[in-house]
Amino acid sequence: MTRPPSPRTTVRRGADRAVYDRPVIFEILDAAMIAHVGVDTPDGPLVLPMAYGRDDEYLYLHGALANHLLGRGINHDICVTVTHLDGLVMARTPFHNSVNYRSVVVRGRASKVTDPADKAAALKIITDHIVENWDHTRPASDADIRATIVIRVPLTEASAKMRSGDPVDDPGDMAGPWWAGVIPVETRFGEPRPALDCTGENRVPDAYGALSGRSPDRRD
Amino acid sequence: MTRPPSPRTTVRRGADRAVYDRPVIFEILDAAMIAHVGVDTPDGPLVLPMAYGRDDEYLYLHGALANHLLGRGINHDICVTVTHLDGLVMARTPFHNSVNYRSVVVRGRASKVTDPADKAAALKIITDHIVENWDHTRPASDADIRATIVIRVPLTEASAKMRSGDPVDDPGDMAGPWWAGVIPVETRFGEPRPALDCTGENRVPDAYGALSGRSPDRRD
Repeated sequence: MTRPPSPRTTVRRGADRAVYDRPVIFEILDAAMIAHVGVDTPDGPLVLPMAYGRDDEYLYLHGALANHLLGRGINHDICVTVTHLDGLVMARTPFHNSVNYRSVVVRGRASKVTDPADKAAALKIITDHIVENWDHTRPASDADIRATIVIRVPLTEASAKMRSGDPVDDPGDMAGPWWAGVIPVETRFGEPRPALDCTGENRVPDAYGALSGRSPDRRD
Repeated sequence: MTRPPSPRTTVRRGADRAVYDRPVIFEILDAAMIAHVGVDTPDGPLVLPMAYGRDDEYLYLHGALANHLLGRGINHDICVTVTHLDGLVMARTPFHNSVNYRSVVVRGRASKVTDPADKAAALKIITDHIVENWDHTRPASDADIRATIVIRVPLTEASAKMRSGDPVDDPGDMAGPWWAGVIPVETRFGEPRPALDCTGENRVPDAYGALSGRSPDRRD
């Protein structure tokens, strides 16, 4: 465990599960498909699921020009959280139930990506985040890129938190009749299913087919 | 589609995908395992993954007494978001890529559950949210309940948003050579794995074993 990058990035609860190492943070971010992005609004906090991509020390988010959440985020603090749920941890008493998981919390000031070439590069990163896709499609037009807003947030203030393994029960409960263990949770891709309007002549890219039966986790 | 319950609950982007019907909102909430909970803090928004439970028109969250996020939420607006990712929607051009998903966003003022009997009832709801567990374990003690903070938020201001089905491409791209379709994403439970310190005499409850190979989605 390295040191947390800032006070607000320091994990408060379960500090023994906190990790601040870049490779661990990057691996968790690279293996998740959806982030939950939080902004402050005059109506209170707002959290929405979003696709994202990572390039070295930045996370990129995109949306339609009128996207309310992204608009609120520009030049403001946002929080981007990704979570993998790996298992339900069933203890001998509910107080010690838990979940096995890997999560990353990023806090930072978002900024708008304005240069068209930078926007196109960021959109490729987001598009290719889970499966290489950008080069298998009709290239994005200038109009497509103009119609999209892209923001980025630095990963300077990121922390990871993880739990794995068995429940940890009270010594006094160990002799009891209660089962204890882990119910694994797995996320897997299925076989790509062509759109009804996609003719058989348009072959599914190998990169998509290769996902079938696999986990988004790249260690898989 | 019924009407949104408040201005801040009205879905702004993709309003055609918005649903305000209670049974749909409840079904999505009941089938998800983790919520992402957002609060405002002096350091900006904070979003953390949490277990939760639902009882009729309330969502319940719990944590250790010193839990920073729950403490911030009491008597303040919070946002609770749950998301099921059902598929990657691969269009003929990245601009039309999407995901199939079901999500619910709840915005509301959280309040602390203080009465010990109410707390115990809420903890049973959270504990049994995914798999019936409370009655298969050593009962929660008064000390366990005192050591836990429980908050609830009304579902008055909840909205759902969903997408399913094929990509929607530009007419001009339809004759191109690009594949279009959906890569399904599935979440399933594995076989319960006993803890190393759990003897063979402690049988796994039928309710846990019955999950094996199934989706958390109760329609499965």
